[in-house]
Amino acid sequence: MNQAIKEYIVSINSVIEQEHFGNNPRELYEPIRYIMSLGGKRMRPLLSLLSYQLYKDSPKEVIPASVAVEIFHNFTLMHDDIMDKAPLRRGQQTVHKKWNDPVAILSGDVMLVKAYQQIIAHCPKDKLTEVLEKFNKCAIEVCEGQQIDMNFEEQEEVHETDYIEMIRLKTAVLLGFSLEFGGILAMDNEADHALLYQMGVNAGIGFQLMDDLLDVYADQAKFGKQVGGDIIANKKTYLLIKAKELASGENSIKLSHWLNAKGFDKDEKVSAVKAIYDDLNIKKLTENKMNQYFEKAFQNLEDIDAPSAKKLVIKDFFNYLINREQ
Amino acid sequence: MNQAIKEYIVSINSVIEQEHFGNNPRELYEPIRYIMSLGGKRMRPLLSLLSYQLYKDSPKEVIPASVAVEIFHNFTLMHDDIMDKAPLRRGQQTVHKKWNDPVAILSGDVMLVKAYQQIIAHCPKDKLTEVLEKFNKCAIEVCEGQQIDMNFEEQEEVHETDYIEMIRLKTAVLLGFSLEFGGILAMDNEADHALLYQMGVNAGIGFQLMDDLLDVYADQAKFGKQVGGDIIANKKTYLLIKAKELASGENSIKLSHWLNAKGFDKDEKVSAVKAIYDDLNIKKLTENKMNQYFEKAFQNLEDIDAPSAKKLVIKDFFNYLINREQ
Repeated sequence: MNQAIKEYIVSINSVIEQEHFGNNPRELYEPIRYIMSLGGKRMRPLLSLLSYQLYKDSPKEVIPASVAVEIFHNFTLMHDDIMDKAPLRRGQQTVHKKWNDPVAILSGDVMLVKAYQQIIAHCPKDKLTEVLEKFNKCAIEVCEGQQIDMNFEEQEEVHETDYIEMIRLKTAVLLGFSLEFGGILAMDNEADHALLYQMGVNAGIGFQLMDDLLDVYADQAKFGKQVGGDIIANKKTYLLIKAKELASGENSIKLSHWLNAKGFDKDEKVSAVKAIYDDLNIKKLTENKMNQYFEKAFQNLEDIDAPSAKKLVIKDFFNYLINREQ
Repeated sequence: MNQAIKEYIVSINSVIEQEHFGNNPRELYEPIRYIMSLGGKRMRPLLSLLSYQLYKDSPKEVIPASVAVEIFHNFTLMHDDIMDKAPLRRGQQTVHKKWNDPVAILSGDVMLVKAYQQIIAHCPKDKLTEVLEKFNKCAIEVCEGQQIDMNFEEQEEVHETDYIEMIRLKTAVLLGFSLEFGGILAMDNEADHALLYQMGVNAGIGFQLMDDLLDVYADQAKFGKQVGGDIIANKKTYLLIKAKELASGENSIKLSHWLNAKGFDKDEKVSAVKAIYDDLNIKKLTENKMNQYFEKAFQNLEDIDAPSAKKLVIKDFFNYLINREQ
């Protein structure tokens, strides 16, 4: 990763660490400091800085505003973890496990309000309405995506286009907003605002497809969680959706056997489903889909009216993320 | 209730009914329409209209903006009902019972964003920052109040001043914001904004003390829920807090017996605790406290720089609420 970007992340983290959020009652504010301190790439505020630097020389000046998207993102994680009954987040106990559901609900609610406070405190007044309208739309879409994802668990069949739409809502639009946010703070070119948003959405869909791939094909030594976790849990990822669509004959029977199997050996299931994926060329198909979205994102970047050298910073960063784990 | 106020409520309800909130996924939007259609007095938007009419002749023009506080209020009810495991709300199933916890969490989250959308769409740009800053503060305080209320359940002793502070946060500040909101939309006199807010907070504390009283002393024929419900549940209301503070000798032993009793006869417990309250003059003490807050609220109203005839509308409405159920 390039040195400037490393410095941006350090600065973002230092602003987050200085943010105290509140004191009393401590059951409300300790969970907020806890989840915000669990780390992560700080990808979303970083994207706001990266789009801002396309037009301005001092991207660190938007850090306070950009922290709003990180607070919002962690609000969604806190509430999603309750809904998904997840025990761990970034290797640590989730808030609803460490405390309880009511604390996680209420601390999350406060975080959502804090995200608005952060925007309102650090956004110039003449841009506030536009930023808030776009943030509201994005926030609602993220909730819609989470609900659609939960609905998928109950559905027998999920179509590829519905899946792409779900990940667009659940994860990609927030990357779109984060990039557009930095652009709005930097300048008034609406065409560029739209391109920044589209770039974030396209890259976000690409990154989610990459996550789906990594869950099956990552190097276990480098991967933070269990490789094959999605297969074990029958998670309806792009890979499984394509496999169900394409499998016929023996593959279809075997896939359906493993999807309905109870009390199986985990490694055996992962190997067996992976063999079906290999037979159906699922890895290549997913990579193609993913690369289509990355290409769209790079095309959006190219169309943006900013100096090439500045655009290269974003291109290099995306390429770093794309190549890092493959 | 005066005819103008009845008309305001009809108009507020008609705007709420026309609001569709969203379509897809339906698991997210049906619960919002459901809880918003359960009715209630629409007290909070009504307060915005009542403060607006102090200065302007057409209070109905702030209905769209005022609906934001009703959406916010119902968001808090939806999430509180999950935390309190409440089965019923206004005689109907709560959202988390009718659907499930994840749906109630996520629909509530969307409602909080919708409250912001409603403010941003219907608030003049030059007042937006002020309104949002005050709304954010209020929203956070309401969450703090709910957490403190939950903490009280685990605490052996709660002091009177802590209880008043809890109800100020949990319920009164939103009435304060609702009144101030209408004032901000109508005019720029900051002294009046502050008085409207204070009036709402004082009246809100008074109304909560009235609720505490009614739960014990209401006429069962007129009361919507079981009289004595708070006694049965050992709810730390103002009455119980004062009784614990003042009880000595036999009363103290009896009160502690009933607070620790398992498998009791409900009517017997209600009668017995009521007898202790009567012996300690708790009803009168609570009424005095309540009336102090109502008097403060009326003093705030008197200090406001608006025509007496317009102020009388608010005074009459508060008196109607105060006398209705006693």
